[in-house]
Amino acid sequence: MKKQILFTPGPQANHGEMTRENIFHRSQQSVELLNKTRDILKKIFGSEYVFAVPSSALELMNIFVTSLNKDLLLNKKIAVIWSGYWSDKIIKVLTDNGFIVDEISEDIRSYNEDQLEEYFKTTKYDLFFGLVCETSNGKLYEYETIYKVMKKYNKLLFLDAVSYAIFYRKNNDLNQHADFVLMSSAKNFLSSPGFAFLTMRKNYTDYEIFAKNTYLSLDLYWHYEQESGQLPHTFHTVLLSYIYEDLLFTYMNKKEICQKIDKLKSIVDTQMKEIGFELYNKENWDVNNLSVYVCSDGIDATKLIKYLEQHDICVGSDMAKINSFRLCISYKNTEEEINLLCKLIKDYINN
Amino acid sequence: MKKQILFTPGPQANHGEMTRENIFHRSQQSVELLNKTRDILKKIFGSEYVFAVPSSALELMNIFVTSLNKDLLLNKKIAVIWSGYWSDKIIKVLTDNGFIVDEISEDIRSYNEDQLEEYFKTTKYDLFFGLVCETSNGKLYEYETIYKVMKKYNKLLFLDAVSYAIFYRKNNDLNQHADFVLMSSAKNFLSSPGFAFLTMRKNYTDYEIFAKNTYLSLDLYWHYEQESGQLPHTFHTVLLSYIYEDLLFTYMNKKEICQKIDKLKSIVDTQMKEIGFELYNKENWDVNNLSVYVCSDGIDATKLIKYLEQHDICVGSDMAKINSFRLCISYKNTEEEINLLCKLIKDYINN
Repeated sequence: MKKQILFTPGPQANHGEMTRENIFHRSQQSVELLNKTRDILKKIFGSEYVFAVPSSALELMNIFVTSLNKDLLLNKKIAVIWSGYWSDKIIKVLTDNGFIVDEISEDIRSYNEDQLEEYFKTTKYDLFFGLVCETSNGKLYEYETIYKVMKKYNKLLFLDAVSYAIFYRKNNDLNQHADFVLMSSAKNFLSSPGFAFLTMRKNYTDYEIFAKNTYLSLDLYWHYEQESGQLPHTFHTVLLSYIYEDLLFTYMNKKEICQKIDKLKSIVDTQMKEIGFELYNKENWDVNNLSVYVCSDGIDATKLIKYLEQHDICVGSDMAKINSFRLCISYKNTEEEINLLCKLIKDYINN
Repeated sequence: MKKQILFTPGPQANHGEMTRENIFHRSQQSVELLNKTRDILKKIFGSEYVFAVPSSALELMNIFVTSLNKDLLLNKKIAVIWSGYWSDKIIKVLTDNGFIVDEISEDIRSYNEDQLEEYFKTTKYDLFFGLVCETSNGKLYEYETIYKVMKKYNKLLFLDAVSYAIFYRKNNDLNQHADFVLMSSAKNFLSSPGFAFLTMRKNYTDYEIFAKNTYLSLDLYWHYEQESGQLPHTFHTVLLSYIYEDLLFTYMNKKEICQKIDKLKSIVDTQMKEIGFELYNKENWDVNNLSVYVCSDGIDATKLIKYLEQHDICVGSDMAKINSFRLCISYKNTEEEINLLCKLIKDYINN
């Protein structure tokens, strides 16, 4: 395939080679790798339990949703905290699976502790879904206070952290601010696509919201792990071994990764301002590797994105419908690539 | 990871390297690769439509099952033609998804055309599941006559062809003998794990048995293809590009692949007979790359399999519970590997 320079939220830039030799997914080597992967994820996120599943993150969210018991399904006890395009996607996964869900206004995030007390004391919802980074507009959200109050009233929080640059976080232990955290190999760990991770604050069996409604379920994965440490189906063990290395690298080199990305972000931001493009996600931009740029008047973002792709440079699409493109800087990107991107954008504008 | 010599039904032996550079799954390059993959699969299998999905084959079967409409669910119109361990697995996928299914005796395969007429004229079932190769015992099944009669009575046939060495077949057009055929990258095309394929005799929309019951469904994949040629979720485009090459190689070099495997099979078979192990799947063994060997008295197959794995040689487990191990010869295996396997088995017996 023709090489691409990637500035997409996922997959991101990567280099090197991997062997095509296969490893048997039912062998002890494979089990040991799965165990190592689960262990490091537990350590990073302060989790008691973790599902490592060979799928995309949204497919793993779907498995979570179809594993919820019918009480949550029938009694309208689920709410999604609205944030934009991607929270609508979560609502779609829930409603397409037969759940009736309510959308909670993002205002909840500006409540003080008393207001949160008032809200959670009386709300009918038992399970809340929220995003750490709304990938469409780059907004970052904190859940520490919300979760503290939720816990007092036995509410559960599912956090989609897929588009979130975990290495920017001083304390990664996201499971201290949520019951369930969803991540992916390509987006959270600057690695290859292929694996999604669902970490849990307590052990899987400590939650009462799950039931075995379908064949493909958390229950299936849990039983396989208990019985043999294996996964239920054939998976690409060797791919996971490379993902594991990237996961470890990301965890061990947070400072170095952030420094490099900060430098590249600053170079690109200076040039974008010169071009006349405005940064949309200014708030907390310093701890995010995703930048959302709104194009200046007369420039159609979607056409610009297409032009860049024709020159083998990929950026994220205008998900928020604000005439923007989304730019994710990865540790593996280079200054040369940034300069090429900026040059191409200038060429496009001038032609 | 420590290198393994593989004689498992899947994944099988593979060599070389692949790049770790990523390709954006929403780019035109990715769409073109998906189209090429679908096209070659349609050509190979005489299919009108194909789903190429980044999952294991059983997960894709699960998507097929959860996409069936409730008429099939509620009115007990599904039957599975029994063949052993793996047909029980299909029954599990169906029943865990809430379907009530009947098991049809394998005797149906010995019916002549008149008997088949008699059966299909009166049967209450609308949809049948069957296996081309029952992976647990290596038995191969033909569906040409069964399907010919089924068609007269508007019955549908789903064939799981995952453990079937397609390159041994003179005419690959399996969709002339079935409505739906399931395959996987690792098992049918001697490639890496990661993709499953579901081919259809008619266009997806020509079948009346499907409904959108869940988020993850054939409908979701179909709509994405219609709208953009893309897949709904992030997937490993580069991995698919290597799988596509293996798929093409398997299709173009059937004769050469069979000749090499026949030679290696004959070497291993001679030595197994000397050791006193009996070939279980004698019938049609000449057109199968899977050999099931029953161990001689006093040898515990499961212990032998474990011993081999400790020496980094993997064979298939005793799925049929007949004190056997399963040996799959791939085009990438070598005479040296076969000799090492046989030597290790002899060592195990003598110690």
